[in-house]
Amino acid sequence: MATSADSGASIAGAGTEYGDALATRRQLYGPNTSLSYEQPLMIVRGHGTYLYDEGGVPYLDCVNNVSHLGHGNAEVASAVCAQLHTLNTNSRYLHPHLPTYAQQLLKSLNASAAPDANASCCSGSGSGGRLTAAAAQPPPPPHPASQGPAIPSEGPSLDVLYLVCSGSEANDLALRIIAAARGPAATHIAVMGGAYHGHTSALIALSPYKFWGSGGAGRQPHVHVVPCPDPYRGENLDGRAAARAVLAAAVRAGGRLGGFFCESVLSCGGQVVLPRGYLRDLYSELRSWGVVLVADEVQCGFGRLGAAFWGFQTQEGVRPDIVTMGKPIGNGYPLAALATSRELAGAFAAPGMEYFNTYGGSTAAVAAGLAVLRVLQRDGLQQHAERVGEYLLSGLRALREVHSDVVGDVRGLGLFLGVEVVRDKESRRHAPATARWIKERMKARRVLLSTDGPYDNVIKIKPPLVFGFREADVLLQQLGEVLRRELTPDVRQRLSQREDELWAAVYGPRHAKYRENERLLYGSSDLPRARL
Amino acid sequence: MATSADSGASIAGAGTEYGDALATRRQLYGPNTSLSYEQPLMIVRGHGTYLYDEGGVPYLDCVNNVSHLGHGNAEVASAVCAQLHTLNTNSRYLHPHLPTYAQQLLKSLNASAAPDANASCCSGSGSGGRLTAAAAQPPPPPHPASQGPAIPSEGPSLDVLYLVCSGSEANDLALRIIAAARGPAATHIAVMGGAYHGHTSALIALSPYKFWGSGGAGRQPHVHVVPCPDPYRGENLDGRAAARAVLAAAVRAGGRLGGFFCESVLSCGGQVVLPRGYLRDLYSELRSWGVVLVADEVQCGFGRLGAAFWGFQTQEGVRPDIVTMGKPIGNGYPLAALATSRELAGAFAAPGMEYFNTYGGSTAAVAAGLAVLRVLQRDGLQQHAERVGEYLLSGLRALREVHSDVVGDVRGLGLFLGVEVVRDKESRRHAPATARWIKERMKARRVLLSTDGPYDNVIKIKPPLVFGFREADVLLQQLGEVLRRELTPDVRQRLSQREDELWAAVYGPRHAKYRENERLLYGSSDLPRARL
Repeated sequence: MATSADSGASIAGAGTEYGDALATRRQLYGPNTSLSYEQPLMIVRGHGTYLYDEGGVPYLDCVNNVSHLGHGNAEVASAVCAQLHTLNTNSRYLHPHLPTYAQQLLKSLNASAAPDANASCCSGSGSGGRLTAAAAQPPPPPHPASQGPAIPSEGPSLDVLYLVCSGSEANDLALRIIAAARGPAATHIAVMGGAYHGHTSALIALSPYKFWGSGGAGRQPHVHVVPCPDPYRGENLDGRAAARAVLAAAVRAGGRLGGFFCESVLSCGGQVVLPRGYLRDLYSELRSWGVVLVADEVQCGFGRLGAAFWGFQTQEGVRPDIVTMGKPIGNGYPLAALATSRELAGAFAAPGMEYFNTYGGSTAAVAAGLAVLRVLQRDGLQQHAERVGEYLLSGLRALREVHSDVVGDVRGLGLFLGVEVVRDKESRRHAPATARWIKERMKARRVLLSTDGPYDNVIKIKPPLVFGFREADVLLQQLGEVLRRELTPDVRQRLSQREDELWAAVYGPRHAKYRENERLLYGSSDLPRARL
Repeated sequence: MATSADSGASIAGAGTEYGDALATRRQLYGPNTSLSYEQPLMIVRGHGTYLYDEGGVPYLDCVNNVSHLGHGNAEVASAVCAQLHTLNTNSRYLHPHLPTYAQQLLKSLNASAAPDANASCCSGSGSGGRLTAAAAQPPPPPHPASQGPAIPSEGPSLDVLYLVCSGSEANDLALRIIAAARGPAATHIAVMGGAYHGHTSALIALSPYKFWGSGGAGRQPHVHVVPCPDPYRGENLDGRAAARAVLAAAVRAGGRLGGFFCESVLSCGGQVVLPRGYLRDLYSELRSWGVVLVADEVQCGFGRLGAAFWGFQTQEGVRPDIVTMGKPIGNGYPLAALATSRELAGAFAAPGMEYFNTYGGSTAAVAAGLAVLRVLQRDGLQQHAERVGEYLLSGLRALREVHSDVVGDVRGLGLFLGVEVVRDKESRRHAPATARWIKERMKARRVLLSTDGPYDNVIKIKPPLVFGFREADVLLQQLGEVLRRELTPDVRQRLSQREDELWAAVYGPRHAKYRENERLLYGSSDLPRARL
């Protein structure tokens, strides 16, 4: 929709350095890697929550959750810099910083943080024994959904750390741990609808966002998709029913669930905050059948959610067996991590195969990780995210009141928010073309946002945590002006036609896949049974 | 074998910082991650080709091929440092350095470098068309080994780059590209015996080093293992026979080969230099059946081999379809890459699924990559590696003459060398306990080496490329003294018992797996047919 003239200062560079870089990149770099925006931005400098193009034009960055402490954070950069000059080797040599970092990171995971969580979170290895017992059982009866009450989902203490390079490597490692711990009898995996867990071969297969998205090859038989709760539309809100459905689906497919991956707040799924009690119920049911529970905190961890340092801690009674971490962990230095129980790590190690990761746990990566934790804590950024996030959410809700025919829902925790764009208030139908148009118009106003969700109609807000009240005001003001001044009836008319085309070509068929999955899981009726 | 007293200065720290770090690491960090040496070293500083423990004791590093330009290289560290302070974002924004880096790296891959290579190496996209034709053919007849002459293995131009975080991510991406390009009819993969291609779920299955090594779960049906040439023992030297055998094995297993992964010099396989013409013949045969040929240069690339910048360029007539790169690429900054033809990248991109890698191609990673290329070229490190490597190899050969009952073979290219330790000159039986003992004795003399190969009896030498003639002399002198003074008849007697135990418990059964594989491929006779 945006014309070239709309695209701000960047276009001035076309034909010169900008033009050359764009042409060479398109010629030589992976054709299926993407550049954001219809007219890509050349960004050459960053500071705090601002990015600057080659003409020095500043853009308010509401998207880059990797630069957690802000772009160009001097403290992390200096820590990495000093370490690179001193030493940067792999973890086969002992270095004092790695164990220190392991202590700090594990401590944060075992802390109780949910306001309403029960006090038994740091329950030690005792509660882990129950997992073993469940896993050692013979295969479950054909229809576990019909079985008795589940064991409370307390979960083990997370006492062992692995450092790797990327969130993808962390989730792929989780798969290997599950395979070692649960063995060939339990190779099926459950994931959430709309989820993305990484780019390796094995993880694309666990990512409905990919396998039911553009170019996706569909669901593999060993993967079962939990219909993602949609609190806005009141769908799929029952965690226990979902657990029973995927347990039964695995059995029907001739297998057994070994693991369940779930982001604590669903990012690519559309910034979905799980309903109160949902994950507790789901965990409780799955744990009673020995399923390994993986909390993917790659996008939402490290204090972003405000209410707690980790996403799973925002939910009462939820204790994963494995936590994977990435993106913000090193403020951009490639680092990621996996924490698990002593029992699962022991099962992974038992056969005697070494796990080695060249860059994971290398000296400079650990220096980055330590600096990030230090700054986060000293500067109180989690609390800052909570305060600014509440302020921003409140402002977004005010916008929704005024523009309820476009802004269907606003939601999120801390500085991890979503604005769901719809075709009208009544139908709540997804409006990806409008969401994309808003994103482009905001970029022309020098505010960077992204869209996501299975229908690409959720505007994601996940800025560096130094994003403050002033930045929130800029975002709210510009978004308000786009909705009020630019989204004219004429524009809406054009977008409506585009929505029809997109629904027919892309999103309708995708929606049908998700609905078909619900029917497969919950029975043959037209509507899924698990709605409340 | 080494007692605590043998372990040098490190032990002095036990109970203090060293002891605390060791205890905490063992308690909290992945139990199947390893620390080198019986008494691990705490390393706190590095400079050039030396590492320093917490007491300031220097160790000559002959192992760390990631710190390619030397530990603490100031130029790379400063380049990364400057970039981290300025900007470090992902590749969804345009940045001028990424396309520049793609140009430089791709140029190096398309250069002709093998002294005896024919001049047609930079043949453009024309020759790539043949691959398509082969791939578009119906499935091959049941016994391709009986078919006619193969198409010369010229191979395509490598015109498209992807940047990722690690060698594992690069090889896993190669698998995804193969799957996209060759489709569900050609899902089988061939790899070399002893190979290691990475730690993701999918790559462990492609790594006989792992799946037939300690704790391995065995070969999966879609994987076929080319018996690794063993020029020292005169085994498995026929590349064409090997290609035909794995093509036929895939068909017998109900599948078809889609890809073939091979390190240009086999590292974990035991520093094996492939015989002249071997890979050309193998490539030629496989290419004629549309198999995608992957050169894994993660360990041996970036000038280390001296004779050429890339390992595949050391072999006449060898042009891969995909090249994966890692370890030395960023001198320790986490970066890796995959280069391929426009045709294969196009096939990968065609379905419309985006490929995104959070840290791959990020601004700081590219800064590291550019700095490494600049220093490598300016300082002539490839030529340096060639000169020092020849000198060192010549010295090792002299040692072999004197100690031929222990040093069975010395081999390698540039600064990528191997010393195969055997039980005696006649039997050439593998001697892992002796190799390990030598490694530990060298460490006590402050020279760091590692052992590798499927039988862990090959001492690997792969130092930072700044390793010079003086360092080569130190290595040769210390190794000479260990062999001459410390490896007494009494010690040999003890080691011999240990070799018997290890062979019975570990390496004999492993050897049997490799032999069984040869029988599977080459027929039912006791000896493989492909020996020359």
